[in-house]
Amino acid sequence: MVGGGPGAFIGPVHRMAAELDGEIELVAGAFSQSAERSRAAGEMYRIDPDRAYADYRTMLEAERKRDDAIDFVAIVTPNYLHLPVAEAAFRAGFPVMSDKPATATYAEVLSLEQIVNEARLPYGLTHTYAGYALVREAREICASGELGTIRKVAVEYLQGWLSRPIEMSGQKQAAWRANPALNGPGGCIGDIGVHAFHLMEYVTGLHATALQATLLSVVAERRVDDDCTALVELDNGAQAVLMTSQIASGEGNGLRLRAYGEAGSLEWRQEDPNRLRLRWLDGPEEIRHASGSYLSDGARAVTRLPGGHPEGYLEAFAVLYREWAGVLRAWKSGAANPIPETLPGLNAAVRGMRFIERAIESSRQKSWVRF
Amino acid sequence: MVGGGPGAFIGPVHRMAAELDGEIELVAGAFSQSAERSRAAGEMYRIDPDRAYADYRTMLEAERKRDDAIDFVAIVTPNYLHLPVAEAAFRAGFPVMSDKPATATYAEVLSLEQIVNEARLPYGLTHTYAGYALVREAREICASGELGTIRKVAVEYLQGWLSRPIEMSGQKQAAWRANPALNGPGGCIGDIGVHAFHLMEYVTGLHATALQATLLSVVAERRVDDDCTALVELDNGAQAVLMTSQIASGEGNGLRLRAYGEAGSLEWRQEDPNRLRLRWLDGPEEIRHASGSYLSDGARAVTRLPGGHPEGYLEAFAVLYREWAGVLRAWKSGAANPIPETLPGLNAAVRGMRFIERAIESSRQKSWVRF
Amino acid sequence: MVGGGPGAFIGPVHRMAAELDGEIELVAGAFSQSAERSRAAGEMYRIDPDRAYADYRTMLEAERKRDDAIDFVAIVTPNYLHLPVAEAAFRAGFPVMSDKPATATYAEVLSLEQIVNEARLPYGLTHTYAGYALVREAREICASGELGTIRKVAVEYLQGWLSRPIEMSGQKQAAWRANPALNGPGGCIGDIGVHAFHLMEYVTGLHATALQATLLSVVAERRVDDDCTALVELDNGAQAVLMTSQIASGEGNGLRLRAYGEAGSLEWRQEDPNRLRLRWLDGPEEIRHASGSYLSDGARAVTRLPGGHPEGYLEAFAVLYREWAGVLRAWKSGAANPIPETLPGLNAAVRGMRFIERAIESSRQKSWVRF
Amino acid sequence: MVGGGPGAFIGPVHRMAAELDGEIELVAGAFSQSAERSRAAGEMYRIDPDRAYADYRTMLEAERKRDDAIDFVAIVTPNYLHLPVAEAAFRAGFPVMSDKPATATYAEVLSLEQIVNEARLPYGLTHTYAGYALVREAREICASGELGTIRKVAVEYLQGWLSRPIEMSGQKQAAWRANPALNGPGGCIGDIGVHAFHLMEYVTGLHATALQATLLSVVAERRVDDDCTALVELDNGAQAVLMTSQIASGEGNGLRLRAYGEAGSLEWRQEDPNRLRLRWLDGPEEIRHASGSYLSDGARAVTRLPGGHPEGYLEAFAVLYREWAGVLRAWKSGAANPIPETLPGLNAAVRGMRFIERAIESSRQKSWVRF
Repeated sequence: MVGGGPGAFIGPVHRMAAELDGEIELVAGAFSQSAERSRAAGEMYRIDPDRAYADYRTMLEAERKRDDAIDFVAIVTPNYLHLPVAEAAFRAGFPVMSDKPATATYAEVLSLEQIVNEARLPYGLTHTYAGYALVREAREICASGELGTIRKVAVEYLQGWLSRPIEMSGQKQAAWRANPALNGPGGCIGDIGVHAFHLMEYVTGLHATALQATLLSVVAERRVDDDCTALVELDNGAQAVLMTSQIASGEGNGLRLRAYGEAGSLEWRQEDPNRLRLRWLDGPEEIRHASGSYLSDGARAVTRLPGGHPEGYLEAFAVLYREWAGVLRAWKSGAANPIPETLPGLNAAVRGMRFIERAIESSRQKSWVRF
Repeated sequence: MVGGGPGAFIGPVHRMAAELDGEIELVAGAFSQSAERSRAAGEMYRIDPDRAYADYRTMLEAERKRDDAIDFVAIVTPNYLHLPVAEAAFRAGFPVMSDKPATATYAEVLSLEQIVNEARLPYGLTHTYAGYALVREAREICASGELGTIRKVAVEYLQGWLSRPIEMSGQKQAAWRANPALNGPGGCIGDIGVHAFHLMEYVTGLHATALQATLLSVVAERRVDDDCTALVELDNGAQAVLMTSQIASGEGNGLRLRAYGEAGSLEWRQEDPNRLRLRWLDGPEEIRHASGSYLSDGARAVTRLPGGHPEGYLEAFAVLYREWAGVLRAWKSGAANPIPETLPGLNAAVRGMRFIERAIESSRQKSWVRF
Repeated sequence: MVGGGPGAFIGPVHRMAAELDGEIELVAGAFSQSAERSRAAGEMYRIDPDRAYADYRTMLEAERKRDDAIDFVAIVTPNYLHLPVAEAAFRAGFPVMSDKPATATYAEVLSLEQIVNEARLPYGLTHTYAGYALVREAREICASGELGTIRKVAVEYLQGWLSRPIEMSGQKQAAWRANPALNGPGGCIGDIGVHAFHLMEYVTGLHATALQATLLSVVAERRVDDDCTALVELDNGAQAVLMTSQIASGEGNGLRLRAYGEAGSLEWRQEDPNRLRLRWLDGPEEIRHASGSYLSDGARAVTRLPGGHPEGYLEAFAVLYREWAGVLRAWKSGAANPIPETLPGLNAAVRGMRFIERAIESSRQKSWVRF
Repeated sequence: MVGGGPGAFIGPVHRMAAELDGEIELVAGAFSQSAERSRAAGEMYRIDPDRAYADYRTMLEAERKRDDAIDFVAIVTPNYLHLPVAEAAFRAGFPVMSDKPATATYAEVLSLEQIVNEARLPYGLTHTYAGYALVREAREICASGELGTIRKVAVEYLQGWLSRPIEMSGQKQAAWRANPALNGPGGCIGDIGVHAFHLMEYVTGLHATALQATLLSVVAERRVDDDCTALVELDNGAQAVLMTSQIASGEGNGLRLRAYGEAGSLEWRQEDPNRLRLRWLDGPEEIRHASGSYLSDGARAVTRLPGGHPEGYLEAFAVLYREWAGVLRAWKSGAANPIPETLPGLNAAVRGMRFIERAIESSRQKSWVRF
């Protein structure tokens, strides 16, 4: 693992998620750019002290020589390091599981794409929400045509934790995100907007063809956007409304997708993840529950507990790692195309960075732009 | 009452709402443009057969001569008749309570404004949702400053009943709404978007200064818009997202307002109208219930039942009529300014029609327009 | 109307509910035992001052002589007057619509039964909750056998307004309810427990055959029970749990019914009355909404508004009065059995009073008793 | 780990929960009474094949001789083995973390109590729900007195999965639970009723002093109870209603606690575990969210993720194991009383078995019994 040192949020999440199903174990890392802090993190993670490295290049160099070398690299750093670490990992022969967004800029993701294609090594992207059972169910419902043609999508991702300029007072999570040099040019749009965009395409199976976005820095002192609204034209002619904000005071992690088809609609909310609502034009509302015997195979395959036993964010995250473990097994056994389409990968990486870039451009031009 | 004949939705609603608090009684009407249908409606409403008139001009003429004449005229016709009926009523000396939108076009509402100002007679507009106790509470909370400066507003009004082109097959409610000659140029935006716009300004106390709207006719054969998304710039610098649709399959009457301030946010949903949610940046979420002893005087004044006894749409509507009865009493006793600011009136009428006109213009130009 | 004077809760409710559908009008009343207060109430209700009588005997005497006499008597007094007023009304030839519980004691309801049977006049009982559309739907679902045999019922009716001994400090609603001489021996069980019992039998179509109840006076100074839990054996062998309380602090009007059948279960909550939840053993949860096109005829017949426009307590109450108006029409035209089985009447009156009496007896004996 | 072989539900749950926080690792087990199945389970759990033992006695014998011996034994077998395994583990010097209920019978738990007291080794009991952050918060609220004296408690635990006699057709989970020889005499009451009882005492801090229970076998062929309702007298004079069922068709894992105090009440639902509702007599309803900065230290200490990122059943379970890891550290370092009162242990074990025994006795006698 690269990144995830003291004070990190997402590093421990990756560790817990990766290990949950017992198929992956964290054994080495370069957790911080400070050797001392990396060592401290290694102790926290209870790994062999020799494998808590001072920097990722050292780690890659050392690990490739070991018999019990790592099987892949998980990248959980601030965005500006995603590309260089991925590149170094690939050059050292290791598959990469990366946190999102894939890179800091759209130009970088094009480089990444080239590198991955040359390396012919697995690449995965942790769009966590794709791991929820009922997101999988929603995806299958859209694919099945049950809802008819999708004609309108509303996706929102609202948080309130950046309502105040906490990046000024040293909150670590806020500080790097508000610094374009570490984060890339997109603030809210890069941090969570890209999740909303991915979820929309992932569930509906539709793709953006044009968009018009308005990005705002509502907190005056802020150097990046903290609020964005976009209209997105989809490839079947439908229009989506995407709303994302980090100054939506009082919101926690309000990711919510609604898709309206000719025959009915679906709604899924991340804060109530074990229920999927279907509302039919000609029938009662329907709530599908995680673990329901009536769910699709794809949805049932990614639950661990019987109905009524809530699974949450870590379990969804762990689904991606479980699929990733399968990818590694398939890849090692020489499979031509080891990555299942349910697991976000390179395509999601490129489209996500494209979304950020296009949204910023549209907002600058105050007009529609092609995707 | 003018309009509200057989097959009407809103006529009986006005009747029930107006009479609920026992201060108003329906005694006369021109319920249809067919004398026979008007008579039939008169029977349904159980009024004196002599006062079920064949047309509104006859009604006004006859009523002004009676000792027990009507006290005011309620207009519940399709939109294109709002102005002519109101004008005739004012010329006959009767106050007017009108359904929304105020007129069919923006030009018409300017005429109306002039007429009202000349007539010096009360004019009210039934933006129903302004009658809910917790909308009143929300309005007082925004005015109090408890939430801090409002920085983002999200208002949506989603229905699904026009998901199919039912206006083609004779559904009366759909047919006139889809006919610009009877309805005016705005479809969804005029029918329900204007409610959403009013609710936003009514609760937050903020006013639109510019907007960018995208109107769509998602159902191909439709002659008016059935879906609209707008960004609205508010006079304190905040931005609002307004989303309205009548092809949101599976939605009933999904009007929902969220306002995000510096210190917290509020959310109100019409389909769950007796609860108001407040989410604070630094404290637990709070749900205020209709009839709570802790509510503002303004909110408590408009409930009729103790806590836990749901009041609904008719009761909210009846609040407007109760206030209207007060307006008439105040006016008769010579009050200079009989209309309380809680009751939508001429200002709401003009702003609502302006919103429709500006949204259509913005959508045509594909750009921001001043309000 | 008898009762419903100044300070009353249920009198104005009866007035609004009775008049809502335009078929009934309040024209006369003996609203209080004080002539002056009755007159004041008459003014509040805007009736002819001559018909605001000083007492109910005077009213009955005067009205029976009028050409435009009242069509029936609505009884909304404290319980101890239900029987004498009903008896006097019947002797004067008027049908009776009575608030619940039917009488103050079980002995009284047996007298009432005899009187009604002799008078051969319509008698209705306002178990309000039977008027909700989705209660009607639930009743039809149980009757249809869709849920399979009902094997368990859980009904609860929880309020918090008597958490403190407010009857000591003059709160009018609390004062008479806490006085056995005015109210009868049952406190909470007579005030709301009887509603819960009725709802259970009304929806499931099952009947109590035995019960074991525990009644408590949790507030020490209180002279009647304020909390009750009962197990009820039903005539198909199922067992019901009935829980009711008026010291459930923080509860508003928490009436909630769950019925579990072999194939699935239903749940209805009075505080969210426009939704009915069905949970199937082998399928997704289902929410039926008021006004759904898929509802039974019986449910659709008692809604006034399209989907998503909430109807509440007054509308449910008004359904009973609408049916009552139909009863009066049928009776006047000589129908043999004018009372539809959807409208609570004499049978509900007797069973309700029996329930109260049996529950008190069981609690005293600390054992099961036959119903 | 003893138990948890192929087809087990709770074994993998213990594994995931124990390892989640990185402080515990599953390294050895006797997973089944069949050596072959135990070996297969060992492979599934990815442990050293040498440490997948054929039976628990062999495991204890072998492990006590190893330098890298296990630190404790987790018991996840059917109930009838809980006592013999615990006894053997203690005799071999290992602390025990046991699944609930503690033993098969009340007599057994008294033996267990004696053994634990003699062994002076840590003993923990996985009453999972005690690990939820908001259960901890609820417990602290009750202790703080904010709600005033608790006067009524309603706890329910409703499942529907045994609505049909699936134990007859070989469903493994159902089969042993329905067999008194493997499970003990309590069916539903022992499987989930004991959780409800524990939660009630854990949160309120009150203790049962008497109870009256009615146990039913609703599914006719069933050899144990599948439905139970109990009234429980608490040591402060309050009364609790406890309702539990496994034939509540359509319910998943419906554990729900409500506690009504003089000043307000709280409600927590396991299927919506990240919210705690407080309803005040004199103020708005309040919803506390997991990770809220305003939560008690005890509640905040047991969350891993920021607000809005749902934690679920596994995370709650893992809280108990995290505390258990702390117990082991404290015990190794010689602490006199290493078990924190937040972690269920011997006292909960005895009280839980006492509850089962008393409930069965009360139901047999059809009367109240002392606790």
